[in-house]
Amino acid sequence: MNEIKIFSPATVANLSCGFDVLGLCLEGIGDEMIIRKSERKGLLITRITGADLPYEAEKNVAGVAGLAFLKQLDLEFGIEMELHKKIKAGSGIGSSAASAAGAVVGINELLGNPFLRQDLISFTMEGEFLASKSYHADNVAPAILGGFTLVRSYEPLEVIKMPSPSELYVTIIHPQIEIKTAEARSILPKEIPLKKAVTQWGNLGGFIAGLYTEDYDLIGRSLVDVVAEPYRKNLIPAFDNVRTASLESGALGFGISGSGPSLFALSRGEETAKKVAQAMKTIYQKSEIDFEVYVSKVSNSGVRIL
Amino acid sequence: MNEIKIFSPATVANLSCGFDVLGLCLEGIGDEMIIRKSERKGLLITRITGADLPYEAEKNVAGVAGLAFLKQLDLEFGIEMELHKKIKAGSGIGSSAASAAGAVVGINELLGNPFLRQDLISFTMEGEFLASKSYHADNVAPAILGGFTLVRSYEPLEVIKMPSPSELYVTIIHPQIEIKTAEARSILPKEIPLKKAVTQWGNLGGFIAGLYTEDYDLIGRSLVDVVAEPYRKNLIPAFDNVRTASLESGALGFGISGSGPSLFALSRGEETAKKVAQAMKTIYQKSEIDFEVYVSKVSNSGVRIL
Repeated sequence: MNEIKIFSPATVANLSCGFDVLGLCLEGIGDEMIIRKSERKGLLITRITGADLPYEAEKNVAGVAGLAFLKQLDLEFGIEMELHKKIKAGSGIGSSAASAAGAVVGINELLGNPFLRQDLISFTMEGEFLASKSYHADNVAPAILGGFTLVRSYEPLEVIKMPSPSELYVTIIHPQIEIKTAEARSILPKEIPLKKAVTQWGNLGGFIAGLYTEDYDLIGRSLVDVVAEPYRKNLIPAFDNVRTASLESGALGFGISGSGPSLFALSRGEETAKKVAQAMKTIYQKSEIDFEVYVSKVSNSGVRIL
Repeated sequence: MNEIKIFSPATVANLSCGFDVLGLCLEGIGDEMIIRKSERKGLLITRITGADLPYEAEKNVAGVAGLAFLKQLDLEFGIEMELHKKIKAGSGIGSSAASAAGAVVGINELLGNPFLRQDLISFTMEGEFLASKSYHADNVAPAILGGFTLVRSYEPLEVIKMPSPSELYVTIIHPQIEIKTAEARSILPKEIPLKKAVTQWGNLGGFIAGLYTEDYDLIGRSLVDVVAEPYRKNLIPAFDNVRTASLESGALGFGISGSGPSLFALSRGEETAKKVAQAMKTIYQKSEIDFEVYVSKVSNSGVRIL
């Protein structure tokens, strides 16, 4: 095999109660990449569509992740990558993670899978650092493994894949305003009250118990964020109205996707998720802000070969 | 039925990664209580053995919990209670929780179970407040429900019972020094770094995933406390030595039981748990401190009728 084409999915990180540790993988929303062997050693990005990104591998998220991966091996040949970005940068649904995950899974597949998927996650962290100035794996983990993931530990890195209840659907609204991940992190306090931390880890525990027991209502009740949302929601127009409309339309729970500006809701069943999408649209149609709305299942497969 | 005798178990709260939310129920270590109907209305404590506790119901943890329960009902008769304390006060294995849990489950059973066990937990919180000046349910929840429990939320109170992997054993050492729960709480900082909170909820998530998947090693790796243990361990002699000895003897993980001074280890299989007990003993035998050591399965049943 000299060339493969892959699909690298968008993801939702944090999931309200799991700041920096929880994430889920979306279906049908993602980038495409072509990865091929080349005679010239090293990593060359040959084509980028859909985004204005640097071609120098060292300055490109996919490039940095790919280089971190290639450093582990002594290849006789080089790698060329084409990036066809569909996920908008700064959308809050893991655009940089999709680039990084696609690069490492793509190269790994092209080489006949010398590494397990679990072991690829660490290579992508350099890419995420380039994008946001912080090491976090809550988007790349679900992009690589699919389903719901938990970053149990960062040092050493350990990611757990959890079950994904079959009737769970995600609705996303992406208001097209700019929030930089680095900025969304800088507005958070460095310390949090112990009492709030207890509230947060009670909910995280409830959410995970809900995934294992397919208890949709428990999953919904646990989607509470007392840590980041109270600060970040002020950056997102009509946040409270969209929340109210989503919950009134039957969503199990609602929150900020990653560091925003995208907002997400989880629902039981596609019909409810579509109603939630309509309710979200209705709110934003009253504003001057452009937006996109998606409805998706949780994808169990992560990056996949097309 | 005019009289019942019950066994109210000791419990281990916090479990390292679950400060104020996680707990487990021990087997074979616990108080006995006799609860009977009496002609005189109200709640009367008629006998206390094993501890020097007040007989006035309003000043006694079991009494306060029993009164909170009785307030819900309009009984034609009264209740008498005998408390036979086996769990030492201030041991860190839920002595006050056993009193409170035993009182409410005992009265409920005597009355033919007008309430579900889940709904009894809130009545015991007043008893816990009397004992420690804080409302917490992480000992009473496992004492009432058995197994492993998660307090998902305090407002409103919601407790989730989780599975208990069948080969899991607990070793406890109780060094007979005094640590008051209220004092052990007051030495904790009111705020914690967000980074530590993330570490803690990653581990809590891993622990819960481990319970559902019976992944003993994951359970062990997740037994990490970066929030309370760094402060509280200084109150407990030889903490680091007991930890090292326990882990070297094969324990999956180790931590402070509740607010101490008891220490606990989880092991896979009774044989390992007994080796851990021996290792703990060996450390404390070198000191001047009296101690008791227990090995127990996790009990799935909570307060039970004898």
